[in-house]
Amino acid sequence: MSNDAHMRPRGDDEEPLYDPAVPTPTHGERARTLAASIATGTLCTIAKEPAGTPYGSLVTFAMAGASPVFFISELAEHTKNLRADPRASLMVAEAGDGDPLARGRVTLLGRGRVLDGAEREGARSAYLASHPNAAYYADYSDFAFWRLEVESVRYIGGYGRMSWVDLDDWRRGEPDPIAPHAAAIIAHMNADHEEAMVSYCRALTRATDTTAATMTGVDRYGFEMSAHTGRGPRPIRLAFSTPIATPEDARREMVALVRRAREVLATASG
Amino acid sequence: MSNDAHMRPRGDDEEPLYDPAVPTPTHGERARTLAASIATGTLCTIAKEPAGTPYGSLVTFAMAGASPVFFISELAEHTKNLRADPRASLMVAEAGDGDPLARGRVTLLGRGRVLDGAEREGARSAYLASHPNAAYYADYSDFAFWRLEVESVRYIGGYGRMSWVDLDDWRRGEPDPIAPHAAAIIAHMNADHEEAMVSYCRALTRATDTTAATMTGVDRYGFEMSAHTGRGPRPIRLAFSTPIATPEDARREMVALVRRAREVLATASG
Repeated sequence: MSNDAHMRPRGDDEEPLYDPAVPTPTHGERARTLAASIATGTLCTIAKEPAGTPYGSLVTFAMAGASPVFFISELAEHTKNLRADPRASLMVAEAGDGDPLARGRVTLLGRGRVLDGAEREGARSAYLASHPNAAYYADYSDFAFWRLEVESVRYIGGYGRMSWVDLDDWRRGEPDPIAPHAAAIIAHMNADHEEAMVSYCRALTRATDTTAATMTGVDRYGFEMSAHTGRGPRPIRLAFSTPIATPEDARREMVALVRRAREVLATASG
Repeated sequence: MSNDAHMRPRGDDEEPLYDPAVPTPTHGERARTLAASIATGTLCTIAKEPAGTPYGSLVTFAMAGASPVFFISELAEHTKNLRADPRASLMVAEAGDGDPLARGRVTLLGRGRVLDGAEREGARSAYLASHPNAAYYADYSDFAFWRLEVESVRYIGGYGRMSWVDLDDWRRGEPDPIAPHAAAIIAHMNADHEEAMVSYCRALTRATDTTAATMTGVDRYGFEMSAHTGRGPRPIRLAFSTPIATPEDARREMVALVRRAREVLATASG
């Protein structure tokens, strides 16, 4: 794992106002989460003409474990390219507004392999679960299921947050179960629980002069806020007591943290 | 130009209900229009590790004439790759909802070249016009302007509408001046002028039993509708009297067509 695999949110070069030992997702976990959340990417293969030139094409894919699978036609250029040379990569990028270079993306490099038998069935299930409309041509004879055997992973989380991901970290990493719910949790906390978040910051971090706080992220290990302090906005990260798996887990952890924060604040003022 | 470079909208295998000689954009023009409308794509270069594997990365770009230009750091993987082997491609895809494979995309294949002198200044102007925020690091010493010298162009307009674009068609093709206004023109016509469109279909095409019509596209050469006929929805394309350049031109052409359609219908019923 590279040195920056555990880079924490920092607004500047100052010391963080929260415990720097708070657990955060690894880059392998972040990359697996990103790839699992997206169904379209750019497949890069090697063109025959101009000879040896990398050829990017739009593909739909699904993750089957740690490998992307594709359902592609023999008539397509990328398939002809893979037949001639299996070396390929898949680049997957987060959608969104604003600066595209500030958003996450991952490139999976390896070799494409056409699947048969049980491997084909596994890929077919994973692909159709993500792309149900493909069922109507799933048995066309010119289409086949392919897997990219990942040999190398490049993760870029945004400006300055990037690494070549350790392959074991990629393979072992599970997509974050909270990711599909993160936007809803963040919206709910920011709409209804700013007071709780101010308490978190004042009681459980060194941002004791926080006057306002906004949730900016949540994952299985904890959550992130932007705290408005006497020195301006500062990033804060707090950990859950244990990795969580559901929005209900998140709610329970947040409530427990409010209780703890209020005890600390009552003791301090008492 | 390939055989399908002038493929016309068709709902099925029946003969079109409009004049098949009506001018349409070439694939070179469509590809130039698409590339000019988008500022982010996937750059495919050749990785050193795993050796020779195509490497896809997210890039921002701008079109300088018929060539994409980039402003990239020597520290970035894709730049290191280009320094070692200039062969590269840029894949650009339309954004939107629904089936991503139904949307347009273009792949430009060629060689990357770092720019100096007047070429650098031209690329810088084009890039900063499209990415003004890059001005603040435009003079960082580890960044350089690069151009992809396009040798080959693959255009995919959606299902079954694709070709290797003739390079002269690509180079000569101008981005459609109506493209930035198309969505507004279509919305306006569908909101306020359905009666005019029904008249177009009944008077100026063989869809004489049209009862409703929806505009689906507009470009410098003409526009497309879906006509509700006795045989179901059918695609229609009508030409402008001359290629147009502005929304005002479109309005004038549409009004002239209404007049012509009403004359035809009055004569038929008189």
